[in-house]
Amino acid sequence: MISVPVRICFFGDSMVNGTGDDACLGWVGRICASARRSGRDLTCYNLGVRRDTSADVLARWQREAEARLPPEHDGRLVFSFGANDCCPGEDIGGVRVAPGRALTNAEAILTAAVAWRPTLMVGSLPICDIAVDRRIRHLSDDFASLCARLRVPYLDVFDLVAASDIWAREIAAGDGVHPNEGGYAVIGDAVENWAGWRAWIDRAASS
Amino acid sequence: MISVPVRICFFGDSMVNGTGDDACLGWVGRICASARRSGRDLTCYNLGVRRDTSADVLARWQREAEARLPPEHDGRLVFSFGANDCCPGEDIGGVRVAPGRALTNAEAILTAAVAWRPTLMVGSLPICDIAVDRRIRHLSDDFASLCARLRVPYLDVFDLVAASDIWAREIAAGDGVHPNEGGYAVIGDAVENWAGWRAWIDRAASS
Repeated sequence: MISVPVRICFFGDSMVNGTGDDACLGWVGRICASARRSGRDLTCYNLGVRRDTSADVLARWQREAEARLPPEHDGRLVFSFGANDCCPGEDIGGVRVAPGRALTNAEAILTAAVAWRPTLMVGSLPICDIAVDRRIRHLSDDFASLCARLRVPYLDVFDLVAASDIWAREIAAGDGVHPNEGGYAVIGDAVENWAGWRAWIDRAASS
Repeated sequence: MISVPVRICFFGDSMVNGTGDDACLGWVGRICASARRSGRDLTCYNLGVRRDTSADVLARWQREAEARLPPEHDGRLVFSFGANDCCPGEDIGGVRVAPGRALTNAEAILTAAVAWRPTLMVGSLPICDIAVDRRIRHLSDDFASLCARLRVPYLDVFDLVAASDIWAREIAAGDGVHPNEGGYAVIGDAVENWAGWRAWIDRAASS
């Protein structure tokens, strides 16, 4: 099988990092390992950072991506953030980043990203706090509309995670916010079966 | 067991990234997963970048580390680079980064690192090219002397890897430079049993 090498930068928060996963893979490591095991030549750069908001990702993603994706290689981008924006903080509405600002940040990130490299976005994840999760749910819907307008494939995972028993059990057994291996596998399976991701992986394999 | 949370940034080249590992762990993911499975609350930031030399790491490590290690958390640093410096290039001696410059770069990195956070260094790895590997061997010795002077614990892994049958087999079966799961496990085991690493992990567990 011919396999085009591809290098993918994953940007976002602790859920992208895989915080709390005793296997140190997270959903990012799981989907990349799965692609490699099926013969894809894929290099994974996990650039998730704990507590990062849309503003934090906006401030760093371009420089970090440019250091990892030289022009002569097939480099791609995946983003997933938003939950930390909705946590209590100093911005309008008593959150860390107000929804209007979060959308402006996401638009700035995604507009520059799609103009540069193939780009996907995975939706914001709940953190198991009722008031915060209500805001994350709304923001995830707004991100879906934004991505539709910018033609960035978007995978909503909020409801999937909110309904996951294993996610809830692992959150309770862990630090109250992050799951462990089972929860990250739930996200990994969803992303792996998503048409947005499959188009990359299947195209990479057949080129 | 009480476990102090610790966040560790690993900086270096493709061997730090774990390029070629179908499990998408590399030696970094393996030692971090092992520490977590034994009860340590550890967050892993893998900041290895393919083709990075000492000059590339010098240019980016501080900004990337500051984005991941806020002052209120126990944050630490591990470096491993040098092989790419020794590959054919435009610097003095026909390499990408001449040995004198590589040492100057390493000294600048490590001096700033140890003044800021606990720091370890893992030696440069061979890439299975006779002429290049001879240069890497010399550079690794120079790094050992530098680290002794700066009081940075240093683990020489060159000879271990050069003598590893599984490393050689996986290099040959892969892209000619990077191993797969077995080779990265060889490095992971060596780092995991190293006093420099154990002092961190055991201290974190007993504090």
